Amino acid sequence: MTKIQAKVTLVGAGPGDPDLITLKGIKAIASADVILYDALVNESLLEHAPANATKIYVGKRAERLSTSQDYINQLLVDYALTHGHVVRLKGGDPFVFGRGGEELDYVRQYGIETAVVPGISSSVGLSGLQQIPLTYRGIAESFWVITGSTTEGHISADLYTAVNTDATVVVLMGFSKLKEIVKLYQQAGRGDLPIALIQNGSLANEKLVMGRIDNIVTAAEESLVGVPAIIIIGEVVAKHQEFNKLRQELVSISH
Amino acid sequence: MTKIQAKVTLVGAGPGDPDLITLKGIKAIASADVILYDALVNESLLEHAPANATKIYVGKRAERLSTSQDYINQLLVDYALTHGHVVRLKGGDPFVFGRGGEELDYVRQYGIETAVVPGISSSVGLSGLQQIPLTYRGIAESFWVITGSTTEGHISADLYTAVNTDATVVVLMGFSKLKEIVKLYQQAGRGDLPIALIQNGSLANEKLVMGRIDNIVTAAEESLVGVPAIIIIGEVVAKHQEFNKLRQELVSISH
Repeated sequence: MTKIQAKVTLVGAGPGDPDLITLKGIKAIASADVILYDALVNESLLEHAPANATKIYVGKRAERLSTSQDYINQLLVDYALTHGHVVRLKGGDPFVFGRGGEELDYVRQYGIETAVVPGISSSVGLSGLQQIPLTYRGIAESFWVITGSTTEGHISADLYTAVNTDATVVVLMGFSKLKEIVKLYQQAGRGDLPIALIQNGSLANEKLVMGRIDNIVTAAEESLVGVPAIIIIGEVVAKHQEFNKLRQELVSISH
Repeated sequence: MTKIQAKVTLVGAGPGDPDLITLKGIKAIASADVILYDALVNESLLEHAPANATKIYVGKRAERLSTSQDYINQLLVDYALTHGHVVRLKGGDPFVFGRGGEELDYVRQYGIETAVVPGISSSVGLSGLQQIPLTYRGIAESFWVITGSTTEGHISADLYTAVNTDATVVVLMGFSKLKEIVKLYQQAGRGDLPIALIQNGSLANEKLVMGRIDNIVTAAEESLVGVPAIIIIGEVVAKHQEFNKLRQELVSISH
């Protein structure tokens, strides 16, 4: 028997469209002995894997069990030690709220080699596909990506600071907190700020809703937008091709 | 003659390693009539282009002429109208300080169709390759990507706010302002904060220097780090595999 070379590679699968993975990510999948993949990963990516690779879905479990991360950590170690190269395929980028850091910390305790292949984070990628520039000379000199769901299930406290800056703000996993987020911006006197919601970004059933802080909750309800959705807030949203049209419609409705 | 279908697609080429472009990016290149590419784009990506595609380097010019963006904008329009599909290949992601938004605004004035293929931003990708997690449960609930070089050549004013937050901060195009950035953090009483510099990220000549705010300028000088480099600041930098070793060395030097 050849000696097993235990290795764990975290691979970012991108936001959904299987063409939004990198070549390096595909090469990692093609060299995998085992693939552990998440709910938000497009299953067609598994076609790049060797026919005899073990493919394990760990998405549903992650939603059900509180101990799921521990369980996944242990799977990574067990499979690496017994099978060799484990590719951990994660939606978006492994380090943008993907708990990839925790997985690396855990498997390194066993002396297992680790690697990371970055992915297109939905924060950058989905705004890009909609042609909303996260930064724009004279409008936004930075962008700030914030979780809408901390360990305790709250919006990150960082958002309380962000509402008072000129940074383009992208909130991930925050759709269920939309009203709360809107309230924070309104309290900061920024009810007029453009905002966009993108659901199922990069997929055939993608939905986009744009508006301003003051009317976005109504617009989202009318358009039946749901999860998974990202939230983009800032003047750059007005750079979307359809935003001016939308503004005229809104103006004609409100006058 | 077939009618020309004018179109401009902005494509993110990723941080340097030609394997860090997406499949969608490669497909766009493969369907290009003309490719305009930047200094930071890996030229081997041009091999994906049709043999008869026109390939134009616009990188050096961008450094030399103040009117360069106007010139590039006009090239995009002229080639789209006369040749068809123009792929604008940009380092990293087109909307992360890439002036992609300005290019779209300009070409749309001519009724030219536009599209965007997102890329791996160096902010997310280079930290990822170094296995530095931008977010980590209990350590950082957000990351903030800020330019070190505004239109006026200054550090963005957003950094003055960022130094007082728990966000992981990534500064792009800020290496020449390192001392200024360090001073801001020191004034905020955060001289002990971990910081990493990555030069030529994802390429064979990649250089990484880590330290703390208070000693990073010396460390950078000793390691002869130069541009292009990204700066990552935050407790997550201590999650790098080598950081503890480094800390012990530094401690042993200073005691």
